[in-house]
Amino acid sequence: MKGNVIVGQSGGPTSVINCSLAGVIKACWNEGIRRIYGMHYGIEGLLQEDIVDIEDYIMSSQDLSLLKRTPSSFLGTCRYKLPEIKGNEKTYEKIFDILDKHNIEYFLYNGGNDSMDTIKQLAEYATKNNKKQKFMGIPKTIDNDLPMTDHCPGYGSSAKYIATSMKEIIRDNESYGVSKPTICIVEIMGRHAGWLTAATALARDIDCSGPDLIYLPEVPFDVKDFIKRIKELAKTKKSVVVAVSEGLNDKNGKFICEQGGESEHVDAFGHKQLAGTASYLANIVTKETGLKSRYIEFSSLQRCAAHVSSRVDSDEAYNVGYLAAQAAFNGETGKMVTIQVDSREPYVETYDLIDIAEVANIEKKVPLNWITNDGTYVSDEYLKYVRPFIIGSIQPYTAGGLPIHITMNKKRKHK
Amino acid sequence: MKGNVIVGQSGGPTSVINCSLAGVIKACWNEGIRRIYGMHYGIEGLLQEDIVDIEDYIMSSQDLSLLKRTPSSFLGTCRYKLPEIKGNEKTYEKIFDILDKHNIEYFLYNGGNDSMDTIKQLAEYATKNNKKQKFMGIPKTIDNDLPMTDHCPGYGSSAKYIATSMKEIIRDNESYGVSKPTICIVEIMGRHAGWLTAATALARDIDCSGPDLIYLPEVPFDVKDFIKRIKELAKTKKSVVVAVSEGLNDKNGKFICEQGGESEHVDAFGHKQLAGTASYLANIVTKETGLKSRYIEFSSLQRCAAHVSSRVDSDEAYNVGYLAAQAAFNGETGKMVTIQVDSREPYVETYDLIDIAEVANIEKKVPLNWITNDGTYVSDEYLKYVRPFIIGSIQPYTAGGLPIHITMNKKRKHK
Repeated sequence: MKGNVIVGQSGGPTSVINCSLAGVIKACWNEGIRRIYGMHYGIEGLLQEDIVDIEDYIMSSQDLSLLKRTPSSFLGTCRYKLPEIKGNEKTYEKIFDILDKHNIEYFLYNGGNDSMDTIKQLAEYATKNNKKQKFMGIPKTIDNDLPMTDHCPGYGSSAKYIATSMKEIIRDNESYGVSKPTICIVEIMGRHAGWLTAATALARDIDCSGPDLIYLPEVPFDVKDFIKRIKELAKTKKSVVVAVSEGLNDKNGKFICEQGGESEHVDAFGHKQLAGTASYLANIVTKETGLKSRYIEFSSLQRCAAHVSSRVDSDEAYNVGYLAAQAAFNGETGKMVTIQVDSREPYVETYDLIDIAEVANIEKKVPLNWITNDGTYVSDEYLKYVRPFIIGSIQPYTAGGLPIHITMNKKRKHK
Repeated sequence: MKGNVIVGQSGGPTSVINCSLAGVIKACWNEGIRRIYGMHYGIEGLLQEDIVDIEDYIMSSQDLSLLKRTPSSFLGTCRYKLPEIKGNEKTYEKIFDILDKHNIEYFLYNGGNDSMDTIKQLAEYATKNNKKQKFMGIPKTIDNDLPMTDHCPGYGSSAKYIATSMKEIIRDNESYGVSKPTICIVEIMGRHAGWLTAATALARDIDCSGPDLIYLPEVPFDVKDFIKRIKELAKTKKSVVVAVSEGLNDKNGKFICEQGGESEHVDAFGHKQLAGTASYLANIVTKETGLKSRYIEFSSLQRCAAHVSSRVDSDEAYNVGYLAAQAAFNGETGKMVTIQVDSREPYVETYDLIDIAEVANIEKKVPLNWITNDGTYVSDEYLKYVRPFIIGSIQPYTAGGLPIHITMNKKRKHK
């Protein structure tokens, strides 16, 4: 008989991260797994043996459906990277002791680059030390920066939220017409990769002019050229909307938002929070052009707005979870499930497994040939790439006009 | 035979402002009105004789349905208040010349306090000068601060967006659990009235703890007491979420965001933009407590996110538009349509007319007895009041996974 399963969620949450969890649970049910454990707050929780029995909360297909409509890590998450094995053997021994104690044979971890490094190290340790456990990675990141997979679950729903909101913001900004032009600068997540910011281009259609300028961190940002373009646009347009990545940087690689000086927001650990690029640029626009400006930051809503999740994204997130568990049951270890796209129109995707070493710690950026030569927009190739990911919706269950979620605050089953 | 109609939209847009426009159009169709004109950019546009023939764009029930699903003023808006009649007779003569020239008999204006003042003055001028035109006000404001009406169309959809997003933000903020607590401060619109900020309380339910603290501008804000409460909450909670109104002010009436000094954002006209309350408080929290903090501003999305419009709000917005037009056809003038609630559960609303002088320039604030004694939450009475407004949804029409809108960029009919 097969041993038990443990599953963890790691890194920044997404709108569909729990779809992958639902896929894992369904695969376990189909396989007849006795116990499905969840790491409470990822590997960081596991190290404290903070684990839960998932079937205390999720017992039925109805629960799974609600789980798929609940944003942000159901099990809790962490930003913790396992140290390298050499010199830290005690940490690894502790983890395997906990796994053995609970007869856990299959370890599934849902996350981005750093989380895949966790899988890589654990799989290596298991192989070297003849451990029975299998370790499989499940891709997840709104940043879409994992290599080897066509795209990452989580990205499509964020792209849909961003494009939807961008259309609405442009409608709003266009509503004033008699007074001076208004320059609206919208800031989108993405420190090093501009995938999310690029998605604002989806707003451009027959009923919407789309953002006027789109700036990604892949191309050095030149404030002077930016101001010149704003002045030019304001000659003919009453509403100018610009999409900027939080990670915009100048030709020396210095973040634009760090040039603001005193307005930086520093968190308790002394890390500069990369917020403020749009606010900084809005101030410069008004100073340099005399035009009215405002800024909008999508903030964490772009990763948790499950009320506009994409159906394709939700299904794919579910599938990679299911397939990772199934692969583990079949004896695979040290691998991640990838999505390959056989045809973009009609959209046909397939799934594959790759060696985890090929993805751990590697960031995939937007290809430079998908960015226009002047660095202020994305190309049709990018749009062809992204369009399938935002198709369809997965409507939230609601009560009293608001989405309802499933959470760990209340146990559903008492033994 | 009846004369023509002109309709205008004024002030900040809402998600359902075009539902009122749809109501006006339908009433005109039913009445057999020959021409339905729209003011392009409100009264400011009218003064430049910038008017459009609405049936160049909207010809069918299908168009009306799409219009109801399109956020932000279809006709464009303005923030322009007519000067008083005395000493400015030329302005009024000009307006009536334009109305007479186009045989306009019915003037409908959709807006908030300032816009109702426009109706008041025009109606007075018409009466004094024996003009045939009838002037009717249609209430609209996300701020919900018009008196004499139980509530204002636009408020329900903003409340629904705010409560939905707040639930999602709380899910997101709760996902990290092992590290230090994170204090998330969310800023909501409302300079003088806290109606929108109060709506965050709707997030509290069996599946969500809701915001931990809610601060409205109706009660003076005390930074020291706030920090004390944050420290207390952080002792037992890993996630603390606070809702603050942009208009929070101290006991001397000074805006909290103005105490930040250099981080103020000033627009081209030198007006301080009331953004930055959450950012300012997040910085103080980290400085004073050493805790991790972040801030979120809902910005203009709270007034244009039509993808989460409320059905009740959408219907009521339609009804007040329809009824205002119908009242004008029946000879009423200088009045505004109001909503009266006969029963909150089950929800039964009726409509009435009041003299416009009773609403123009008056702001209705959240009653102090709906705010808890310590000024950090709203009461159950408020929740009973607001719950009906967010019920039901009006799904956007979509193409390619994104909402589609009807705009004036393309004429639908060519004569």
